[in-house]
Parts: sequence; C-alpha cells; structure tokens
Amino acid sequence: MDFGLNFFPVIDPARKSAPEYYQETIKLAVAAESLGFEHVQTVEHYGSPYGGYCPDPVTLLSAIAARTSRIRLTTGAVIAAFNHPLKTAAKLSMLDNLSQGRLDAGFGRGFLPDEFGLFQVPMAESRARFAEMVDVCTALWSEDSVTWTGEFYRFGPVSLLPRPVQRPHPPVFVASATSAESCAAAGKAGHHLQVVPSVTSREQLREMLTAYREARAASDHPSRPRIQIKYTCYLSENRAEALETAERFERNYVDHMAGAVAGWAGTRSGQYPGYEKFVDKVRGYDFDAALAATKVLAGTPAEVRDQLAAIAGWYGDDLTVSIQVSPGHMPYEQSERTLRLFADQVMGEI
Amino acid sequence: MDFGLNFFPVIDPARKSAPEYYQETIKLAVAAESLGFEHVQTVEHYGSPYGGYCPDPVTLLSAIAARTSRIRLTTGAVIAAFNHPLKTAAKLSMLDNLSQGRLDAGFGRGFLPDEFGLFQVPMAESRARFAEMVDVCTALWSEDSVTWTGEFYRFGPVSLLPRPVQRPHPPVFVASATSAESCAAAGKAGHHLQVVPSVTSREQLREMLTAYREARAASDHPSRPRIQIKYTCYLSENRAEALETAERFERNYVDHMAGAVAGWAGTRSGQYPGYEKFVDKVRGYDFDAALAATKVLAGTPAEVRDQLAAIAGWYGDDLTVSIQVSPGHMPYEQSERTLRLFADQVMGEI
Repeated sequence: MDFGLNFFPVIDPARKSAPEYYQETIKLAVAAESLGFEHVQTVEHYGSPYGGYCPDPVTLLSAIAARTSRIRLTTGAVIAAFNHPLKTAAKLSMLDNLSQGRLDAGFGRGFLPDEFGLFQVPMAESRARFAEMVDVCTALWSEDSVTWTGEFYRFGPVSLLPRPVQRPHPPVFVASATSAESCAAAGKAGHHLQVVPSVTSREQLREMLTAYREARAASDHPSRPRIQIKYTCYLSENRAEALETAERFERNYVDHMAGAVAGWAGTRSGQYPGYEKFVDKVRGYDFDAALAATKVLAGTPAEVRDQLAAIAGWYGDDLTVSIQVSPGHMPYEQSERTLRLFADQVMGEI
Repeated sequence: MDFGLNFFPVIDPARKSAPEYYQETIKLAVAAESLGFEHVQTVEHYGSPYGGYCPDPVTLLSAIAARTSRIRLTTGAVIAAFNHPLKTAAKLSMLDNLSQGRLDAGFGRGFLPDEFGLFQVPMAESRARFAEMVDVCTALWSEDSVTWTGEFYRFGPVSLLPRPVQRPHPPVFVASATSAESCAAAGKAGHHLQVVPSVTSREQLREMLTAYREARAASDHPSRPRIQIKYTCYLSENRAEALETAERFERNYVDHMAGAVAGWAGTRSGQYPGYEKFVDKVRGYDFDAALAATKVLAGTPAEVRDQLAAIAGWYGDDLTVSIQVSPGHMPYEQSERTLRLFADQVMGEI
C-alpha cells in the first residue's frame, strides 16, 4: 500500500477563513512530502461550504508544487462539464511543467445539480462531456498537432503549449466511478482509478475493482494500474478522543453535504441512477454504522492498522490510500498530529 | 514612478524548455520582491510560441504567490472570451486568498483571430464578453448573494467561495485598451489601466491617458487610479551589448508575433478597427525606429533613466512601469543581471 493526502474542504467560512485554510493546506502538504506520502490531491466544488474553498484544484496544487519537490500532485478531480478542455489541458500541462512531471490528472463527471445549474450544463451531458474532455486532453498532450471535431468542441490544427513533461502524457485517473461498467471502460482505456468507498457498498466496490483490473490486464497499456481510495482518518493514542472527533467532523461533513445534494430532491436523471436517494441517505447517516462498515478510518494506531488490513483484504493490497486529516474546521495542530502519527505508527508498521 | 516585472514568454520550445522557463520565472519574481519591485504580471496566450508558455496566468502566479510574501500579483491579462466568469472569479479569489490579498486582476478582450477560432468564440462578441466578465467578477466578489442574468450567462443565487481578501473586491485593471473611449469607460467605472505603448502612437496614448484620468477624477471612486505601462528592458554598462541584445530579442518577438497575427490577413472586424494592418505593421518593424520612439528601454543605466524621464514627461510620473527582463530565450543569468542593474542604478536613482 501507498499513502497520499487528500484535501476536501467542508468548511463554513465563519469557522475557518480561506487564507488560513490555504496556508494550513500548504503546510500539511510540505509535511506529507517529508513524511513519505506519495501524493496530495484536492477537489473542485462551487458555491457552498461543501468543497467550495477549492473551486480550482490546479490553482491550489500549483502553490503546493512551488513548495515541494517530490510529492505527486493529483486533481481529485477536475470536473469535465465545468471546464473547457483546451484550457484544462493547457493549465494541467503548466502544472506538470511547474512540478517537473509530478501531475496525476484526475477527471470527474460531477454529481451536484446545483453546480450544473450554475454552469448551465445539462446533467444529461455529463458522461459525454467527461469522455470528450479526457480524449481532448490526452490528444493535446500526446500529439504534436491536433485537429478536433467532437460533440461539444471543434478546433485546430493546434499544437498545445506547454508540452507536458510526462510522456506520452500525465497519468489520467477516472474519478469516483460508481459502476462496474465505468470502471471496466477506464481499465480498457489504460487509465487509473480514484474511488470513494463511502458512497458504494463493499460488494459493489469489489465488483468495480475486479472489472477494472480485468479490463486493465486485458488491455495492452504498459503502465502499472494505480487505484486511489479515499478515507477520512481520525487518529489518536486516546481512542475515545479519536472517535469523538470523528463523529463530530463526520457530522459536519454530512450536514454540509445535505445542503449540497438538496438539488437531488425531486430530480431524476437516467445518467445518475439512484442519486435521487441521496437526500434520504444523507438524512439517515449513522456514524456508528459507518465506522463498523469501515467507511472511515478512526481510532488508535493499532485499530487503524487493522482497518487498513481489512481494506487490503477486501480491495487488494496494491491500493494507494488517500487520507484526509484536515476535515472541516479542525485546528491545524490536530491535523498535523494525525498526519505524523499516521506516518510514524500506521504507514511505518504496515 | 513604481516598477513591476512583466513576463511575456515569446519562446520557441526548442530554445528553452518549459520547466526551465517556469523555474527561472519564479526565481526572477523572488528576486524582484527582494529588490523592491511592486508587482509581477503575466499574460494569457495559446498554441504558439507567442505567449503560449502561459495559457493560464493564475496557475503561474499561484506558484509565485507560494514563494513570495509582499510583491503584488497581476494578471496581464485574463482574456474574457476564453474563460467562464464564475470559474474565473473563483480562481482569482483563490489567488487573492493564497497570497493574502496581493491580487491585481487584469482583464483583456484578446486580439488574435486564431485564439478566438480555438475557443469558437466570434471576435464580434469580445467587447460584450469583456464587459460581462468584469461585471460578473466584481458582483461575485462584492456581494454575498448574486443572481445573474446577462447576455452570455445566467445563474444564481450563489455566494462565491472563497470570498476575496481585498474588500470590496481586488483591484480591477482594464488591459490593453487602444481607444480613448475605452479608457474613459475604465476611468468612469473606477477601474485601473494597463497600457502597451508599443502598439499605439505617443499622441494616441497621451489622449487615452488624459481621457482615463479625467473620467476617473469625475467618478466618485475613492481608490487612487493606477496605470501600468509595459516595456521590455535591455540594460548593460556596455551600450553596444545592450543594443545588440535588444535588437536580437525584439526581432525574436516580432518574428513570433508575425505568426500569431497571421490570422489578421484577410480578416476585418468592426470591433477591432485597423487590426487588419497588423500583418504589414509587423512586417515593416524597424528596431532603430522603435528605439528612437522609446517603444523599448535599452542602453546603459544612464540612458534608460533618460528614457524613463521622457516617458514620465509624456505620460505622467504616477505610472507603474512594468518591465520585461526575460524576453525570448534569453539566458537566465542575463535576465537577473538586468533586473539587479535596473534596481540598483535605474530605480534607485529616479
């Protein structure tokens, strides 16, 4: 197992200011690099405390790139429907160059009706836009001259500048797929995978990963398949403290998520089967059940090591586990303590 | 007079690699901060050596923000037609937060037919898109809740996150206006100004600045008007060396500009009167004439001081002169030498 650091700011501005959040994020990323973490990653969300402190992952990762030298930088993820692929390919390539080849480019479809409303993009187009975004970016990165005639975009011939450092192109991660079919498609295309175990059942995720690995093995893509799996982690030598903190900040996450997914009440989309149940799912959230199902890492170092062993048993020991240690408005010192304890007594002991 | 540092990469990738360019740019920005320069700024261009190393100014400025603490960060400029205003407002606000309030937000219309072609935006819309971009950004930055119904965009109600640090909003610069009317409009709106003397006659620029200052004074905007004026600077104790270098890199600039403006051959646009003559203008470029007309700063420190005194006489001594010291594929050491010589023997002596 490898380990990375995930930033998903679910923060009410009244609880922690944005300058404070960014400075803390950069400090944690620098610490993560020195502690041997493989990557840092961050999200793209708009207009609500649910991720809204990071509407542009590249802007934050570029600042982190300037303060680090080894750790990889992952978009987790760029949302295809809200970005122009030419612009996206170009700025991701800038980040690959600024970081001397440390970019892992994660792309997602997005899933919040309110965000699609802000950008006036029909949710029904999200799958097609995602596919075109990934295809445009890999073409612009790999080929010296591209003439593009797609469903949404037409341009060229053009030679993208800057050319990316990583050849033929930076690794592409498909983010947050929730079906075995999507995972198989990602594997067949030679892409890597980002999964979020909190939104799928254990059985469903196992099927997804099996479909991905089989399709990837059957493809002729030479790179080693990489799977990033995301967990929030609450760690303390004092078990009660870890669990109390976990329950409080998971509740903060769920409360803000309830606002962000409210647009699903009364929305149905054939492209997002079952998402209309999001509102009820969030309303029915139960921390003890989530902990028992290992949807979150929480407890003493020994307990978290056991949780990771279980995860490796279910999903494979070739995963990169991306942990969030700075949920919500947690004080910085507590996040850094979690990070160091994890590096010292969890990562180091597995 | 204040002074800033301008980055406009006109670089053939075969002559200098992108990672090298970015590392050098960051080093120069750090040096500029320590030498007392007021700002750094950079452009947005696509798909050709004419600026193509910087398709996203925010990505580069974010890296610079992470390595500096005082110097201001200027987009010079974000091109309205190629960016979604919601995304732009959000990521510029991230930069304002990452830098603790050091953003100066420059916006431009763009002027290259090939770039409009890449983004499938009619050039005839550029003025309206520029106006809507500036209005959307200032609204999202200033107001807690925005419902927008414009010509190109409709969204809301939404509260932008993160909120910018600078209140009511980061300073807005109108970039590269070429008419007195545009400058008067910028002044009336309380905006700041970026001008490029190489593309206008001295008389035209004087009229533009007069129109701007009069409109600004008649407006009730409390902030001090700021005017950034851009020059490439070639400086050496050895006059012949400075001029030889200047001629070589100005020629490099003009040669690459010829490729970038080729789309104007046979193009006419009522929104860009006279731009169809760009191709001939570039073809007829004469270095000695440009030097004699002080379109470029070049020579010994004493000569450049005289050139700046003339500029102050023509255009006012309240300008911020933004110098480019790293044109084309110039070796880094030479750029840093120019910067230090300028700080020591030009800036310090005025």
